[in-house]
Amino acid sequence: MSADCVIGVDLGGTKVLAGVLDEEMNVHNRVYRPVHGLPQGELIDTIVGAVEEVREAAGREISAAGFGIPCLIDQRTGVAKMAVNLPIRDMPFRDVMAERLGLPVHVDNDANMAALAEFRAGAAQGVTDAVVLTIGTGIGGGLILGGQLYRGSIGAGAELGHMVIDRDGPRCQGNCPNHGCLEVLASGTALAREGARIAAERPGSLLGRALADGRTVNGALVTELAHDGDQAAIDTLALIGRNLGVGIANYLNIFNPDVVVIGGGVIAAGELLMGPARDEATSRALPTMAEHARIVTASFGPEAGMVGAGALALDELRKVG
Amino acid sequence: MSADCVIGVDLGGTKVLAGVLDEEMNVHNRVYRPVHGLPQGELIDTIVGAVEEVREAAGREISAAGFGIPCLIDQRTGVAKMAVNLPIRDMPFRDVMAERLGLPVHVDNDANMAALAEFRAGAAQGVTDAVVLTIGTGIGGGLILGGQLYRGSIGAGAELGHMVIDRDGPRCQGNCPNHGCLEVLASGTALAREGARIAAERPGSLLGRALADGRTVNGALVTELAHDGDQAAIDTLALIGRNLGVGIANYLNIFNPDVVVIGGGVIAAGELLMGPARDEATSRALPTMAEHARIVTASFGPEAGMVGAGALALDELRKVG
Repeated sequence: MSADCVIGVDLGGTKVLAGVLDEEMNVHNRVYRPVHGLPQGELIDTIVGAVEEVREAAGREISAAGFGIPCLIDQRTGVAKMAVNLPIRDMPFRDVMAERLGLPVHVDNDANMAALAEFRAGAAQGVTDAVVLTIGTGIGGGLILGGQLYRGSIGAGAELGHMVIDRDGPRCQGNCPNHGCLEVLASGTALAREGARIAAERPGSLLGRALADGRTVNGALVTELAHDGDQAAIDTLALIGRNLGVGIANYLNIFNPDVVVIGGGVIAAGELLMGPARDEATSRALPTMAEHARIVTASFGPEAGMVGAGALALDELRKVG
Repeated sequence: MSADCVIGVDLGGTKVLAGVLDEEMNVHNRVYRPVHGLPQGELIDTIVGAVEEVREAAGREISAAGFGIPCLIDQRTGVAKMAVNLPIRDMPFRDVMAERLGLPVHVDNDANMAALAEFRAGAAQGVTDAVVLTIGTGIGGGLILGGQLYRGSIGAGAELGHMVIDRDGPRCQGNCPNHGCLEVLASGTALAREGARIAAERPGSLLGRALADGRTVNGALVTELAHDGDQAAIDTLALIGRNLGVGIANYLNIFNPDVVVIGGGVIAAGELLMGPARDEATSRALPTMAEHARIVTASFGPEAGMVGAGALALDELRKVG
């Protein structure tokens, strides 16, 4: 009698990452493939190829596969409604993958999967109510409410980056028609934009000189220079952290969570981002909410989506079993 | 064999309203008592007196009582943590009432109770996911998620009026330390404030003349003059409606609900408020969310809290039974 193994797959705008998860959520046999710019047919072939390679390398029976994809999903049908960075629109992703792989397939939003990873084995383990924000180019959100992943009535919910915190703020990104969303004020994209603005305003700073030297001002550069002690870079992170903190305050009041988990590339900035975020959130939230909740960084890094997708497949197996 | 009857009690800042609910949620034997300005001891005596009067008038056995109170509740202990408008703070409300009444007592936030009333017998009946905003002096919120009332990890959640939509906006009300919350921009208080401002700016309007005549500009006056066709009053309602719409857009993106229900005194303005709110919400929300959700007015008026408190008591009886 062998324990169940599953495959977890994280599909991003530029890559697919697949791996085998055993029942203790240990990851084996990782495979990574670029997918940037592929048309739909080749994209699907590449994903199937990556999963098949992982499956062969595993050398034992695989019971199911879970997918995290950067897309609104209608959970009633498994149809991927709309993706900002991939040629997927109104596509029956779950059924297509199940047919191609000959496996039970479960699919969910990549940010929901990151939240599930934190809930099953990371920073939100052991709690009942958690808000998970994954901050990269955009801001993805996942909700654990009453001990379960919350997906909204048709499974498209928890778009936590698309909450207005400044109704007259800048136009949001991609397919979002809104203004002043958390995503446009506290994402990695916002960090790069504000970094470039502050660099131009303060040419004597390390950040300003980097800009003058023709370096691309992005989140990684701002974070590096802030860790080197550059005040302009530190101020940029604090500005983004405070914006993030406004959003966290809202989520504290709305959900009264046990924990707010911040993940994604920006957490490389550590306390230079998290300190101002925490200060702003606790000064704005209702005291009962602020006193109860922890505001922490994620346990999982770039593999959060894959681990969560595997956790989804394991959860579904247990339901059936 | 007689069906279960319960007592529902709605406690507000100025009055207590109690009534008997039968299993079909019909209301009988209403009792209304003013409580404005009473110190804690007299307040509790007045509530107990109102419930006892209803109980006697009912003339049949009462199985339990439910209370909606304008307070953060710690559901683990039944302790009322903090009320803005009543002399209640860190008080074991559930246990005190159970002892005084000799009945099983259930207690929850008044806005949660209004949401439960809409879910069991009103505008949110038959759905799984609903956001209910009750707009009066402040804005109360209730969430039905996955077919259940959601209360947050310790039961203090769903403070939906305290979501920032303008991070640099005006200071919020009462005990809220925040700025630019939905409550300070779209409540009845905001309607009165903006009405007075617009009246001063447009002295030739009916609204302006009412102000000059020494009338108090409040939500009821603005609504009355708007229904009379006064453009200044209509514009005031549209302004508040658009602010409300920004908040609704956020809740559409966060929850992907089936329905957003707007209740409270302001809905007397009807489409003059709801039209602009709906337009703003659907222009800002992600299309998948906006297409799925209805945005409607509440079925219950001033009795929503009492009906919901009775529904809570009935729900709890069924759990035990």
